Amino acid sequence: MADTDIAPENRAQKTVAPWWQREDLAYRGGRLHLGSTDLAALARKLGTPTYVIRARRVAQKAGLLHRALDRVGLDHHLYYAIKANRTPQLLSYLAGQGLCGADVCSPEELIHALSCGFREQDISFTGTSLSAADLEILGRFERIAINFDALAALDRFGRAHPGRKVGLRINPDRGIGYGGSQMLQYSGAAATKFGIYLDRLPEAIEIAKRHRLKITRLHFHAGCGYLDREMTQFAAVLQESRRFTEQLPGLSEVNIGGGLGVPHRASDRPLDLDHWAHTIAQAYGGTGLTVAVEPGDFLVKDAGVLLASVTYRERRKTVEFLGLDAGFNLAMEPAFYDLPCEPVPTVPREAPPSRFTVVGNVNEALDKWAEDHPMPPPEEGDVIALLNAGGYAAAMRSDHCLRGAARNLMLLD
Amino acid sequence: MADTDIAPENRAQKTVAPWWQREDLAYRGGRLHLGSTDLAALARKLGTPTYVIRARRVAQKAGLLHRALDRVGLDHHLYYAIKANRTPQLLSYLAGQGLCGADVCSPEELIHALSCGFREQDISFTGTSLSAADLEILGRFERIAINFDALAALDRFGRAHPGRKVGLRINPDRGIGYGGSQMLQYSGAAATKFGIYLDRLPEAIEIAKRHRLKITRLHFHAGCGYLDREMTQFAAVLQESRRFTEQLPGLSEVNIGGGLGVPHRASDRPLDLDHWAHTIAQAYGGTGLTVAVEPGDFLVKDAGVLLASVTYRERRKTVEFLGLDAGFNLAMEPAFYDLPCEPVPTVPREAPPSRFTVVGNVNEALDKWAEDHPMPPPEEGDVIALLNAGGYAAAMRSDHCLRGAARNLMLLD
Repeated sequence: MADTDIAPENRAQKTVAPWWQREDLAYRGGRLHLGSTDLAALARKLGTPTYVIRARRVAQKAGLLHRALDRVGLDHHLYYAIKANRTPQLLSYLAGQGLCGADVCSPEELIHALSCGFREQDISFTGTSLSAADLEILGRFERIAINFDALAALDRFGRAHPGRKVGLRINPDRGIGYGGSQMLQYSGAAATKFGIYLDRLPEAIEIAKRHRLKITRLHFHAGCGYLDREMTQFAAVLQESRRFTEQLPGLSEVNIGGGLGVPHRASDRPLDLDHWAHTIAQAYGGTGLTVAVEPGDFLVKDAGVLLASVTYRERRKTVEFLGLDAGFNLAMEPAFYDLPCEPVPTVPREAPPSRFTVVGNVNEALDKWAEDHPMPPPEEGDVIALLNAGGYAAAMRSDHCLRGAARNLMLLD
Repeated sequence: MADTDIAPENRAQKTVAPWWQREDLAYRGGRLHLGSTDLAALARKLGTPTYVIRARRVAQKAGLLHRALDRVGLDHHLYYAIKANRTPQLLSYLAGQGLCGADVCSPEELIHALSCGFREQDISFTGTSLSAADLEILGRFERIAINFDALAALDRFGRAHPGRKVGLRINPDRGIGYGGSQMLQYSGAAATKFGIYLDRLPEAIEIAKRHRLKITRLHFHAGCGYLDREMTQFAAVLQESRRFTEQLPGLSEVNIGGGLGVPHRASDRPLDLDHWAHTIAQAYGGTGLTVAVEPGDFLVKDAGVLLASVTYRERRKTVEFLGLDAGFNLAMEPAFYDLPCEPVPTVPREAPPSRFTVVGNVNEALDKWAEDHPMPPPEEGDVIALLNAGGYAAAMRSDHCLRGAARNLMLLD
């Protein structure tokens, strides 16, 4: 997949294309384009900061997953995890494309997904620490798929709505994560707050029996941002999940959660989807179970950028600083999760690269986009694209320091 | 100060009062009160999650600073750093009390402070990575105090507004922080993005001369959350700042920034304000300079709590989980800065304490309020107060997972 992602004009050149370049995110005539859109020109019209996401890239990513799962003969559903990017126009596009359902994790997300056009029967809910009020709202929607991550919630729901079909979110007690990150592990040695562990599965089955609930789905989520090097761990998680499915004869679907990663650095390779699909098929092929997947970042992250403008350049001690008009409150993953949003000039100037520490406009030391980052020295007003801003950027933003204003545009071309 | 903070009824008891207890945050008849308000009763009326802040506590904290600086004979100004908590009703109260001005760091914060009743002449602006648009807005307000943290901004402003009085944010190249935390250091060995370093001060003076700007203020900010153990570092920062003031004969004010900490754990003691004031006086006493301070957290943090309700209790492996209806998106400091918001029951049940891992309702592994935390086992629906939520909680919140709804109430009693 890596080769076909590099635009032809760059393959012909002697210079190495940037690691993130692909057909729909590339320089044309020295100007960065996302799809057919000249990003610097867009920024001049709309101002900065502005989030930009290309809907067709999102759809393309979903298509890649579908085809990979088709190639291994797995019946499957995709539920897009809207927590990654809940921009209404994007959700409406996805709902209209019919490529995926929606994975939601709160009553407000549920209602938002419905409001953007997703049908009840295409919505999967997996939340945590559910209040009585949360459960009351959930109960109104008979056709959504709800996965309960605690015996307490299962019991309370069952009492109010006996006879319903339910899913169980379980904890396979094994974790994976981007580069082995502890922050992004959802399961593993210490007890985490998610899901029902194997030792308590019999109690869950008992509760379901008591309320005539039919356990038709199993759900688990083992990590975030996994790539090829995590496939061994991924396989182990899937194997472990079989210990649960074996005890649940009424299952029709197993939801393996999300966590599919995207490259963030030059050293990352895109996930080998055939290897991934094959790994799933080894665990669940031929079982008759539908496999559900809940990609979030995999669909949206590299489809979107955050456009910002250079405010100043200045040396402090031995460091060249490049200031932008966008701060970490607009995309928190670089500061808090070590997942960079690489800054790239939309119109690189003709000059050899210097190294810059790229910073934002919020008064916090960790408001830093990149350190020692090479680029041809930009001028004040130049538009910089912060890559991989399609997921968990706008969705997690805050108005810290009242620096939260940003446009949010979806491209259909 | 610690003794007078413990309510008389608790001094008489044999049981040790919780470390955070003080006269206006204490159990009365087994029910937690903030001022005269029964917090559990308040939560039943308003629902949860709800932020609650006691305005008089904020005013009291400001008074402590004033008196400590008076006792060492320092002429001084207080500017409350509104980024810590910009709740309009609180700002209006503070503006009305006349105890402090406002420290702002963005044009939107500037306009917000004005909108809440602060006068231009009582507002200090210190921002970073200022765009041309930012500078244009700032220039409209002739009576605010602006401190420039970069030569580029100073030059641009001077060109547009020659003859104005200005401040310089400098970098003393030394840092302090809560427990020595790297995250919270604003200066120190590696170049940080804040301020003008000593080697470039001559250029700043030259720029000012070129535009007939009068440098009347020096500003620096060396850290966040410092307590007594950081006083040696604090003294060193102040000493270092004298190397700048010596070169600026026109100064009338030195702004030592904020960063005064509050206790977050049982092992923390409140800042000894006399020691603190004495340390400042050693550097600036008798210089004729007005000392400005920009407390944020020191004024508001322990004046506010976040009320949440218990959703469930459940054992996973060997851990007892206690779920709340509030997630880390409502108060990010525990997850990202290791500054806990200790959960305490508003109406502790009559039972020996168990140990709980207290978690929120957002689908992220780091959405965890406390681990292995002792409290008498609460029941579903019990109201828990997350302490030290008066600063950088509401102000930094996000609508992640559409779990961002929370009330925000100010108590005048």
